[in-house]
Amino acid sequence: MSQLEKLIDRIIVRANMNLREFDFDVTPYVKSAFPTEQLLKFYAFYGVTSHHPLHFNFIGSNLAGSYFLGKCKTENSILYKSDVRGDELKKKGEVFTYQGLEMPIANDEEIKIQDSFLVKTLIHSNSHDPESPEEFLIRNTVSNFYSNIHGAPVEGCYLGSFSTVDLTSLHSCIIGAFSYVQSPDLYYTPIKPGTIWIKGDDFKFKYTYDTEILDKYIMEIPGEKPQGIFMDFIENRKDDFQKVFDSAVGLEPTEVPIDSAVSRYAYIAGETQISENVLISQRAYLENAWMGKGTNAQENSYIINSRLEKNDITAHGAKIINATLGEKVFVAFNSFLNGKEDCPLTIGTGCMVMPHTIIDIEEPLEIPAKTVVWGYIKNKSDLAENSVLIEDMRKVNGEVTMGNMTFKGNGASIISAFEHRIDHILEGNGAFFNGEGKNQGHAQEGSNMSYNLIQPYLTGDKKGIFPTIDIRP
Amino acid sequence: MSQLEKLIDRIIVRANMNLREFDFDVTPYVKSAFPTEQLLKFYAFYGVTSHHPLHFNFIGSNLAGSYFLGKCKTENSILYKSDVRGDELKKKGEVFTYQGLEMPIANDEEIKIQDSFLVKTLIHSNSHDPESPEEFLIRNTVSNFYSNIHGAPVEGCYLGSFSTVDLTSLHSCIIGAFSYVQSPDLYYTPIKPGTIWIKGDDFKFKYTYDTEILDKYIMEIPGEKPQGIFMDFIENRKDDFQKVFDSAVGLEPTEVPIDSAVSRYAYIAGETQISENVLISQRAYLENAWMGKGTNAQENSYIINSRLEKNDITAHGAKIINATLGEKVFVAFNSFLNGKEDCPLTIGTGCMVMPHTIIDIEEPLEIPAKTVVWGYIKNKSDLAENSVLIEDMRKVNGEVTMGNMTFKGNGASIISAFEHRIDHILEGNGAFFNGEGKNQGHAQEGSNMSYNLIQPYLTGDKKGIFPTIDIRP
Repeated sequence: MSQLEKLIDRIIVRANMNLREFDFDVTPYVKSAFPTEQLLKFYAFYGVTSHHPLHFNFIGSNLAGSYFLGKCKTENSILYKSDVRGDELKKKGEVFTYQGLEMPIANDEEIKIQDSFLVKTLIHSNSHDPESPEEFLIRNTVSNFYSNIHGAPVEGCYLGSFSTVDLTSLHSCIIGAFSYVQSPDLYYTPIKPGTIWIKGDDFKFKYTYDTEILDKYIMEIPGEKPQGIFMDFIENRKDDFQKVFDSAVGLEPTEVPIDSAVSRYAYIAGETQISENVLISQRAYLENAWMGKGTNAQENSYIINSRLEKNDITAHGAKIINATLGEKVFVAFNSFLNGKEDCPLTIGTGCMVMPHTIIDIEEPLEIPAKTVVWGYIKNKSDLAENSVLIEDMRKVNGEVTMGNMTFKGNGASIISAFEHRIDHILEGNGAFFNGEGKNQGHAQEGSNMSYNLIQPYLTGDKKGIFPTIDIRP
Repeated sequence: MSQLEKLIDRIIVRANMNLREFDFDVTPYVKSAFPTEQLLKFYAFYGVTSHHPLHFNFIGSNLAGSYFLGKCKTENSILYKSDVRGDELKKKGEVFTYQGLEMPIANDEEIKIQDSFLVKTLIHSNSHDPESPEEFLIRNTVSNFYSNIHGAPVEGCYLGSFSTVDLTSLHSCIIGAFSYVQSPDLYYTPIKPGTIWIKGDDFKFKYTYDTEILDKYIMEIPGEKPQGIFMDFIENRKDDFQKVFDSAVGLEPTEVPIDSAVSRYAYIAGETQISENVLISQRAYLENAWMGKGTNAQENSYIINSRLEKNDITAHGAKIINATLGEKVFVAFNSFLNGKEDCPLTIGTGCMVMPHTIIDIEEPLEIPAKTVVWGYIKNKSDLAENSVLIEDMRKVNGEVTMGNMTFKGNGASIISAFEHRIDHILEGNGAFFNGEGKNQGHAQEGSNMSYNLIQPYLTGDKKGIFPTIDIRP
């Protein structure tokens, strides 16, 4: 048995140990994810800049196709085409505030991934666990295609395909496919597929997809690769990324204003326009995308035949097709906004598209300005059931049920939580940069990064395992 | 002053300290070698295989464009587009024999480069210093364009452009441009440009190029980049290598028999044919090259419009243009065999072309089988003065002078030293592989290597310095 096979088995046992209470077996999800030979085919890469604390430490792992930016240690793990950012890790000397308690940060924070198997998973932000602010830990965990671990330490979990765990600490949980969880912490909790669950101090938001609808978009069958419209959408475009990754130095660069940043690992095609203060992350896909000032396209997002007016956010994994967005529209994680060429989608200024929303229309659709939308929308009547004006939401206090959505608590709180977050993202990305050194963000930092490509042993007992690598200043 | 500038100054002082007896200043050679911005432009890379002991350790250095294969540590050094092999380093448990003394090798040998500035320098083989067999040390040394450090620990030296130090230990020496030195060891010795000097136990071979001829081919002017036909020849072809290096995964591979190896960092063009047991190293340049069974093209060699019949050796830096080689022809280091389209060069079976030979003809020229040739040859009459049949050479005992060449001692010894070396190279490269696991060499090992690309900081105080990197199994 090769070291790589032993490693896979070791991870399976450890995740199963954590999930033994549920009698849940990760084996079929791990073994069917992709043929093991894929682990030899793709280089991993890491970025070096002068403005991020630097430390990479890779031990006994396979990192095929994965990307690292902030401090990160991987140990006995398989990260297949995962994207591990880290430009928002806490820095030594900062103060971490949680429920009024202030904690000084002792060391530059580090992402630590141990005994885990992650597939095309995005890891971003920083540890929101107040008990461990200097370590963003992912341990004994299996995550499936296109899941997002966002500021969420996870231990002993299974994260389904296209699921998102956001600003949550998770221990021994099972998160179903396309579920979104944001909650202070979570122990031994199974979350059914297609559940969008946001829990704040004084509110709870919950939406549940009907199984038959969800299955069309994403369905996990143990022992098989996930299936559905989401997978097809991405697989149909994966060859386009190949030439981007085949180049060691980056393709002919797109015309980009000095205050904007387009990752050389983004795919840019057609009549795409990049305005000022724009951030296009690696693995973003832009085709005929008009990106107005201060807009962004985060990792694994797709913007096709669409216009984003100004300060619009395309969060990780969101897809925007045949759509026109007014100013400051927030398209949250993994939303699938699928206008058609003859049925365009128009989203008014200041709208909030909740995480994991599916808008898949067969008639033109216009969403009025300052609206919150969620869930599954295919026409005007769905929109009526799955949206509310922001000003009306603010007035809610108590319980509201609309279709598959239930809200309990203070409506103003969830709105201001989102508003706060939107401003935080725009600031962090440099959308408000004034050209003179003020309000600098990722868009202004990103351009002077050097990329470094690493690969595993290709033969012998260690075939597929990366050497032990340590990189520091 | 940036860290990079400090590093350059530090290296200059240390080399000058070693060379103070000669009142020699390396500054103009270091400062004029290339604009400092070049140090930011090119990635370095290292190979990982399952059959080489692995340890790379890069500290406080710039490694732009350099390549590493065997165990290597660099400290406070600048290696610009250097090629540091190491697949012939001694391994733990082997026995090193020197003048009848046997020394067991305690650790896998390592190349250690400290406080040195190397430009497009090739480092190969292993330490021939019997006092330090586990460490191949290069220290306080400045080497200029296309020099070769072959099994030669060097301390406190200046190596001129296209010079070769071969199987020698050097301390505080100045080796002139295009000089070749092979000698047990050398202390505080200046070698004039264009000197070919081979010293064995019972023989001495010395050839000296006339200055005016040498200057046409390679001339060093302090404060300027080296000039001449050699530099022009290489510069005219450097763009061809660009696309090879711009790819992260290698270009469309050449058709190569299973028992041969063509580096993905070689340039292959035109009607080039690769037979069995052939080794084409990185940075070899082949255009319309017919490579017969067991032939090789080592680093920085060029083979253009030429046919190599069988078991021919093209040593590091050798150039073969418009030529036909019979079987087992040895073209040693940096030789420039420049046939013309209408004046082809023919070299008979079993010939030995001595290191740093220039054959630049304006009439067709045929070198009879089993001939030793050296020096500067532009026609038949030069050939008569600068060659001897191997069987006649064997008979020499005493002193012989022919043109600019003087030989003293035992002719049979120098011939058998070369014969031994030729067989050693062919064996090492796998020229005699029988297809069934016997006589395996580099040609059979090379294909399953993974390449890893590393880069320096691009901004800040450390701009141009590579992070501290440690890679081990």
